[in-house]
Amino acid sequence: MREIIKRREAWTRKEVTKEEALDIFKGQKFKTELIEELPADEIITIYWTGDDFVDLCRGPHVENSQELMGAAFQIKSASGAYWRGDEKKDSLQRIYLYAFPNKNELKAHLAFIKEAMERDHKKLGPQLDLFMFDESAPGMPYWLPRGWKMYNALLDFWRRKHIPYGYQEISAPVLNNKSLWVTSGHWGHYKQNMFIVPGKTGDLELDNDVYAAKPMNCPNAIKVYQRELRSYKDLPLRFSETSNIHRKEKSGELNGLFRVQAFRQDDDHTLCTVDQIGEEIGKIMSLVGEIYGTFGLSYRAELSTRPDDYMGDIESWNKAEAGLKEILDGMYGEGQYEINEGDGAFYGPKIDLQMKDCLGREWQMGTIQLDFQLPQNFDLTYIDRDGLQKRPVMIHRAIFGSFERFIGILIENFKGSFPFWLSPTQVGIVPIRTEHNAYAQEIENLLYEDRIRTEADYSDKNMKEKIKALKNYKVPYIVVVGDKEAETRTVSVNLRGSNKQLRDIPLDTFLAVCHNLDRKYVLDLQEEM
Amino acid sequence: MREIIKRREAWTRKEVTKEEALDIFKGQKFKTELIEELPADEIITIYWTGDDFVDLCRGPHVENSQELMGAAFQIKSASGAYWRGDEKKDSLQRIYLYAFPNKNELKAHLAFIKEAMERDHKKLGPQLDLFMFDESAPGMPYWLPRGWKMYNALLDFWRRKHIPYGYQEISAPVLNNKSLWVTSGHWGHYKQNMFIVPGKTGDLELDNDVYAAKPMNCPNAIKVYQRELRSYKDLPLRFSETSNIHRKEKSGELNGLFRVQAFRQDDDHTLCTVDQIGEEIGKIMSLVGEIYGTFGLSYRAELSTRPDDYMGDIESWNKAEAGLKEILDGMYGEGQYEINEGDGAFYGPKIDLQMKDCLGREWQMGTIQLDFQLPQNFDLTYIDRDGLQKRPVMIHRAIFGSFERFIGILIENFKGSFPFWLSPTQVGIVPIRTEHNAYAQEIENLLYEDRIRTEADYSDKNMKEKIKALKNYKVPYIVVVGDKEAETRTVSVNLRGSNKQLRDIPLDTFLAVCHNLDRKYVLDLQEEM
Repeated sequence: MREIIKRREAWTRKEVTKEEALDIFKGQKFKTELIEELPADEIITIYWTGDDFVDLCRGPHVENSQELMGAAFQIKSASGAYWRGDEKKDSLQRIYLYAFPNKNELKAHLAFIKEAMERDHKKLGPQLDLFMFDESAPGMPYWLPRGWKMYNALLDFWRRKHIPYGYQEISAPVLNNKSLWVTSGHWGHYKQNMFIVPGKTGDLELDNDVYAAKPMNCPNAIKVYQRELRSYKDLPLRFSETSNIHRKEKSGELNGLFRVQAFRQDDDHTLCTVDQIGEEIGKIMSLVGEIYGTFGLSYRAELSTRPDDYMGDIESWNKAEAGLKEILDGMYGEGQYEINEGDGAFYGPKIDLQMKDCLGREWQMGTIQLDFQLPQNFDLTYIDRDGLQKRPVMIHRAIFGSFERFIGILIENFKGSFPFWLSPTQVGIVPIRTEHNAYAQEIENLLYEDRIRTEADYSDKNMKEKIKALKNYKVPYIVVVGDKEAETRTVSVNLRGSNKQLRDIPLDTFLAVCHNLDRKYVLDLQEEM
Repeated sequence: MREIIKRREAWTRKEVTKEEALDIFKGQKFKTELIEELPADEIITIYWTGDDFVDLCRGPHVENSQELMGAAFQIKSASGAYWRGDEKKDSLQRIYLYAFPNKNELKAHLAFIKEAMERDHKKLGPQLDLFMFDESAPGMPYWLPRGWKMYNALLDFWRRKHIPYGYQEISAPVLNNKSLWVTSGHWGHYKQNMFIVPGKTGDLELDNDVYAAKPMNCPNAIKVYQRELRSYKDLPLRFSETSNIHRKEKSGELNGLFRVQAFRQDDDHTLCTVDQIGEEIGKIMSLVGEIYGTFGLSYRAELSTRPDDYMGDIESWNKAEAGLKEILDGMYGEGQYEINEGDGAFYGPKIDLQMKDCLGREWQMGTIQLDFQLPQNFDLTYIDRDGLQKRPVMIHRAIFGSFERFIGILIENFKGSFPFWLSPTQVGIVPIRTEHNAYAQEIENLLYEDRIRTEADYSDKNMKEKIKALKNYKVPYIVVVGDKEAETRTVSVNLRGSNKQLRDIPLDTFLAVCHNLDRKYVLDLQEEM
């Protein structure tokens, strides 16, 4: 490639007929095969360069190879590939490479790739003993003890944040009868993605005793709504749920925690009046800000509006969209956010949340969807102030998206060095010798009482070995105690990612710092001691 | 009946032939039908009383009705019943009644029945908005917001108790491939109770892409064990798990939370050496004592020993049983507990825990089972001190049994008036008028910060109405605040189950009492204020 560029060769475009093309590429069986499949009257473009190189290509190309003088390339990898992806055909060599306009951009990209690979949750997750996969449950993560502690810390955080907003969490069955999915419409539109347990005869369409693992929580929230006669005074009702959800995916599409077959959404279904939509969305966006902000993640919102095949009355749509716009106008300024006109679902407009991680990568995370359809399918009503039965609107929303996917992103974003409050083990405890075990145990008990997650090594191993093992797990604070500490009731603390050891910290100060970092969801490991 | 008793009639037993019996009961079609089905040479017993009453009966009967002079009866109910339970046959009247040797025993039993009915969790649960069932998911409870708070408080308590004992909680997939169930043996022995998702062709036996919702967690714990090469230094490994479990039950056998199709066990699978069995069981029994003790529930343990068709070597069995006996001897004294000789499973001996509730009813709750089989099925090993590969033993255990069943029992035991730490709403907050909302909100915020579950009514409803609504939910403390309280920064507290109102409690004292009742899992509502 370097030689060709240096030769300053022209790239010449030519249009030829099918007949001419077959003649030019005579003896080249793959190209001949491609050309023969084209219609007889197709005009075919080819490119010539140098003395003899000619290839089929729609273009465009540079006009002369000298234009690439500053360009930077690097081979990424090479692999065998079957001609046209068919394993019965010839095996070819496929070469992958990075190509950028200049060296700096290539360098930056390679650094990005390296960094992204080091952060890859599929590598880091098992390495930090967070999760694993087994072939007997593809795309369905096993949460290992450390990962499960983190999962529950995240779940607890999420619950705490929702309490002041008036959410009511429910937990509904994982398996539900086909009748529920028929009413909800999932049976008609989503069946191919559902894990289905057949009934007595095994005929999915005829049997009534068919069950399916739920792919979504919505119909269950509706059943809870229907438990009582509802009045306008009860609304809005916000039924959050984090139950196990299953969706079939093609095995080639599974991707660590990013694309799984079993997961839990941080789900909610709010039932409200059309007039309440604006206020509800406003509250959700405020909660979104609080939650993403805790992780230092920036995000932007996109609005998708009424499509042509919308359902329901246009007045409700207008009210709903006006409510959504008002909120986004207030957040970003009028016109300062993306609107995907006509891109909403037929059952309602929606807001999608695009999150940016520390490498600048954008991820589609949360979604807030209005739904005029499901309340109709289940004939939901409430008694309004005027005594008339009216139909509520449903808001589906998830902020993390799913716990699994969000944890995958957090692993990559934090490179496994999670904020104190989220760390699987928050404080490691290392007695220098076994005679310091008693004081170490006292510290561990005090931290346990304050619900701080600890890991202590009371063995007779060498201190350095103990510290190293904890460091491998990226434990934020490693407390080391010996004679002096036991005597003065202090601790020495090794901070994660630093070689510094803080000494002579009074035990009470240390406990207070841990408490504060944990309960206030502090993002960074501040050295407040 | 009373008249017959007063007549002091004799009950005379007679043996007759089939032929004689048919003659005696000529014209009575039901009795004739029964007699005709007996073998020709059967000796049939009948009873005569008074002048003319004669009936078929194997006996025994009292010899004279005067023996029943002190007996007490009460009709319980009457209902239609088909002859021999066949709806194509005649409809008869069935009369149920209570019969006791004397009035006091009848009275005591009726009081017991009344009390048990008032405590029935199937009635109380929905009444307190704890759970509901929907016909689209029979035997699979929906946890309503209040019930789910309680469920999670119980789960949190359970987790806290397990931490100091070195348990490591995992969470594994709900759906697992048939291959896993074939290896574990569930496919062979338990398939009919499993919800199974067929593969491509729908042939359960031929397809490999068949999945089943797990009926037990054991194979998943094994997969986590197998993740690494294990050494004797790693053992015991205690993998606890509370994932969703599904087991098919006949619809007639479903019974509220007591017999369900979907539930979560407070499960654990400990892998240890044969020598560690005794110590492990000892620790489990100590944990059992702590956990049941928190609820004020008494219990007893039963040991089931080696059956004739046992698997594995007799030396391991002997060691295991000796370990179990030593623990129970220590707890109850030698011979002071029930031993079901030969009643263990073929794969290992077990201890069953029988719990007694406040009405004296016994419930089979927890179980502790040794298992020599599963480690063999999955070829589990560890490297022993001598460098040789050895096979660990597995201990399956659950203390609650299942969260669902245990909550059902707690509802009945406490009649819905749960200990403070377990109550869905721990503190109700009632501002006397809306101008007291600010102080009430401040109290609610402080309780929220301390993770106490609150419910405040800031509406303009009448104070009495607000209190009544909270009382219906059996909220332990209802805080009422008005001018005086706002001014002096005190609270007035209505105690559950008492008409007394405690006044002038300094806010800090009240907060400290709540904290203490909650964190120390105090059983009774002590008036420490």
